[in-house]
Amino acid sequence: MGATEEAQHETAAMHMVREIPVARADTTVDTVMASLRGRKFECADTVFVTDDDGRLEGIVRINDLFADSAYLIGDIMEEVHEAVRPDDDQEDIAVLAMELDMIAVPVVDDDGRLLGAVPPEALLRILRAEHMEDLQRLAGINPARPGSEVGIDAPLGNRIRRRLPWLVFGLFASSLITIVMAGFEHSLSANVAVAFFVPAIVYIAGAIGTQAVSVAVRGLLDDDVRIGKLLRGELVVGAGIGAVLGLIAAMLVMASFGDHRLAAAVGLAVLGGGVVSAVVGFGLPWAFTRFGADPALGSGPVCTIIQDVSSLLIYFTFVTLLL
Amino acid sequence: MGATEEAQHETAAMHMVREIPVARADTTVDTVMASLRGRKFECADTVFVTDDDGRLEGIVRINDLFADSAYLIGDIMEEVHEAVRPDDDQEDIAVLAMELDMIAVPVVDDDGRLLGAVPPEALLRILRAEHMEDLQRLAGINPARPGSEVGIDAPLGNRIRRRLPWLVFGLFASSLITIVMAGFEHSLSANVAVAFFVPAIVYIAGAIGTQAVSVAVRGLLDDDVRIGKLLRGELVVGAGIGAVLGLIAAMLVMASFGDHRLAAAVGLAVLGGGVVSAVVGFGLPWAFTRFGADPALGSGPVCTIIQDVSSLLIYFTFVTLLL
Repeated sequence: MGATEEAQHETAAMHMVREIPVARADTTVDTVMASLRGRKFECADTVFVTDDDGRLEGIVRINDLFADSAYLIGDIMEEVHEAVRPDDDQEDIAVLAMELDMIAVPVVDDDGRLLGAVPPEALLRILRAEHMEDLQRLAGINPARPGSEVGIDAPLGNRIRRRLPWLVFGLFASSLITIVMAGFEHSLSANVAVAFFVPAIVYIAGAIGTQAVSVAVRGLLDDDVRIGKLLRGELVVGAGIGAVLGLIAAMLVMASFGDHRLAAAVGLAVLGGGVVSAVVGFGLPWAFTRFGADPALGSGPVCTIIQDVSSLLIYFTFVTLLL
Repeated sequence: MGATEEAQHETAAMHMVREIPVARADTTVDTVMASLRGRKFECADTVFVTDDDGRLEGIVRINDLFADSAYLIGDIMEEVHEAVRPDDDQEDIAVLAMELDMIAVPVVDDDGRLLGAVPPEALLRILRAEHMEDLQRLAGINPARPGSEVGIDAPLGNRIRRRLPWLVFGLFASSLITIVMAGFEHSLSANVAVAFFVPAIVYIAGAIGTQAVSVAVRGLLDDDVRIGKLLRGELVVGAGIGAVLGLIAAMLVMASFGDHRLAAAVGLAVLGGGVVSAVVGFGLPWAFTRFGADPALGSGPVCTIIQDVSSLLIYFTFVTLLL
């Protein structure tokens, strides 16, 4: 999805302003303050400190500039060498701002020379846009093009077009579920009560999976990815949740149908669904990230299909074994 | 959920800093600039302008303060009378910041007197936290208490406890789906192929509904709620999507099973699911908002149950009528 992604996402260059205060480390704060007066900056919240070649050395928040007029800029600056490039995606800007607790993010060229900064106003807009986009992508809604309206104010035709692709994909993928069902025609014919629990099992597997995906999608972007450790943790969570829900489900089936083998099959299918959801709900967003795509993109619809098919296979396996 | 909500959410007072630059409208910019020097502000990005009683009259961005040293503060200030109260929820702060394009949000007491401001660093953190929370709430994960770790770094027991409540609710609610299935035992026994399409129909209804919810949840917070107009728009979108998917589904069933009555029942169930998802996916988050709860809270799990039950009822109604 690389190329399409880039075309639809805003870059650092599109958010960057060029009129920003720049100073050398060996200048006094008083001199810098005097030089700021009478100039129209687009982002004066942070003074960017560069060396003689224009390479970024650090930043001074305006708060500190006012407070410490007796010193050299170099004495009060916070060393910052990380910055974004003009063609970096807006998501990278937001991640860097949060990591380094900056309210204005420097933009540098390939040689590390300061070009401009992404101001706090833009950071707020970016975080808001990423928020909207994540919600929509997780639900399988394609992102809007930059500048076009998103959400409930977009034209109806546009909204239908952005939602249909993943649904059509899902519809074809759901044929798999139907094939699984048809494959166990014999079990269904032999005991029609087996069919009663199919939608509830699929519902619970989907609900557990949605939770795993929603935790994974943001977690994978925020931290360095330690997939092994995370996956083991999520497996314990999935198994724990699956065990509790499976036990309740088995008791409900036992109480209303009085069939302990059917109850066991339903309970084990719910437990199995919890474990599978852990692997799929965590593994799939991680795989999307590895291939350079936004982990939220299509994770919801794709995960649900895999979880539905898996929990039905588990259910019918136990039905075949136990009944 | 009101009281619980407040207890688990941070307030404006918790994000507020008190050391901010304040000026009167009839002061010159030069005087204000001189008064800022040598003081340690916690948020000097914006000068807040108040009247003699300390009531907020407007704001001046630091950018404008540097540029326009020849004028009175009142000449260059942007009039702002909207502010948050100390006990307002952090979500309200973010909404006001976005609406008024402010990077520091004033906090006032009941008489409108300026108490402090929420600085840009806090706004970025709030937007990020709301983002995480929305993703989790939509998936039916309860919010973490303030200060405790969220997401993939939280202790495993904590993660299981925050996820279980909505899943247990969903498990009991899914009994409804099982009751619907059991109610149509006769249709299922008469033609077991009817059961084959149940999970796929439930999947598609859920997928359409998830999209409607994800669009509604943010849209309802962003804009003044014009629910009638929005609902009509979403109905058109739902019916359009349902018609396209229903047609494809009917053709797939026709091609693989050669039963035009079954094909019609499946297609009409998908179409009906699209329309129901429009009403439920939009109406439920709106109802949550009306009752003062976060629209993302539990919308996902609850909507899915309603959509599953509705589309199965539609499906079996057509099965009964057509087959």
